[in-house]
Amino acid sequence: MLVNNSKDKGWEEIIELLANESRRRILQLLTKKPCYVSEISYALRMAPKVVLEHLEKLERAGIIRSYEEGRRRYYYIDRTFNISITISPHRFAIEVIGEQDGDLQKTFSEVAALMNRRAGRELSEVFERLRDMERAFRMLQKDISDRIDELIDRMIVELDRMRLDEISKVVLYALIKGLDTPEKISQTFGIPYEEVNLALTRLEKSGLVSKVEDGGVVRLKLRWRGDVNE
Amino acid sequence: MLVNNSKDKGWEEIIELLANESRRRILQLLTKKPCYVSEISYALRMAPKVVLEHLEKLERAGIIRSYEEGRRRYYYIDRTFNISITISPHRFAIEVIGEQDGDLQKTFSEVAALMNRRAGRELSEVFERLRDMERAFRMLQKDISDRIDELIDRMIVELDRMRLDEISKVVLYALIKGLDTPEKISQTFGIPYEEVNLALTRLEKSGLVSKVEDGGVVRLKLRWRGDVNE
Repeated sequence: MLVNNSKDKGWEEIIELLANESRRRILQLLTKKPCYVSEISYALRMAPKVVLEHLEKLERAGIIRSYEEGRRRYYYIDRTFNISITISPHRFAIEVIGEQDGDLQKTFSEVAALMNRRAGRELSEVFERLRDMERAFRMLQKDISDRIDELIDRMIVELDRMRLDEISKVVLYALIKGLDTPEKISQTFGIPYEEVNLALTRLEKSGLVSKVEDGGVVRLKLRWRGDVNE
Repeated sequence: MLVNNSKDKGWEEIIELLANESRRRILQLLTKKPCYVSEISYALRMAPKVVLEHLEKLERAGIIRSYEEGRRRYYYIDRTFNISITISPHRFAIEVIGEQDGDLQKTFSEVAALMNRRAGRELSEVFERLRDMERAFRMLQKDISDRIDELIDRMIVELDRMRLDEISKVVLYALIKGLDTPEKISQTFGIPYEEVNLALTRLEKSGLVSKVEDGGVVRLKLRWRGDVNE
């Protein structure tokens, strides 16, 4: 019944926006780097006018933001949210977990409490407990997403400090952002394939990257020794 | 990057189908009971031809199924899945957790293991660990949904065995399915409001239902003493 009770009606607009493949491709590209219109237009082979229309819709819905730099307007994603859709014989529920909801410690202890509490004899009680648990898990999921993003931010900051040539930096940046083959890196960042490969060889030598075979396909794997203790 | 790697491309079609409000309303209705075309048409005030078109699309995508009974074709939801959409500065991921993925015990122990394992010093390791965790939580969520559905199924089976008048049974069934006001029950099942209220009074007396005030609105709450121990 979440579909009806939800205070946050934003999910309707978001799902309607995500139902369009071009917009999904644009979002995917924006997770790699902030982009301006003609850049997106070139990378995705779409007319600039169409790209701009999609960007405006996404911005109006609060999914992306933009800033001006020089004569260009850059678009980027600056919020984290998680939409969970459950379809089952007895339920059709859509829920958005947004910025304000996350609190890792609190949610962890909620989940722990729910897991340890023994069920009473009332079916309706078990029922409500399960629903609480479901909600707690969604929050955790959102928190984990946040932590992944924090980690990526930190890696990007560290990357800036490293003494590396520019192309190696871009390649490393691409790996952090989840691009895992030279082809994808070359395409997304507009660097010739050969140069990407040379940079990768240098990064392999310095121990920052290793190649892993994954079912016949060679994938690049980041080896990053940051100062993490948790 | 789940968006690109996913073997299950079904989510694209599902999201496109859910982007339509009428289809969402039909699904919502089908979680209450199996319905035939003219029944949906009447309840949602939509032309039968339009309803049929939506139903056919949903059936073709495997979201709903149908069976014939007498001269009527009933539509119902017969599968459970969970779609998780994450949008964040560095990620745009859509993942479907379907029928074959769930195994509560296994996922529970995976999560426990992930939570207890201490992070190494490699940032990229923490990174992968977080992603594993994310996936494990999604599975848990799906498992919890399954358990809620199992519970509802059990309640419906028990309901059939109870010695109650027909209207009380329908009202109780409606409550199990998440309808929590007499208005909604009356509307969804086409029973006069007064009769719903009379049945509710009887059910209150027998201790199966109680009324709870929730911010000025009176909601009905199920009191079901099943034989549950977990």
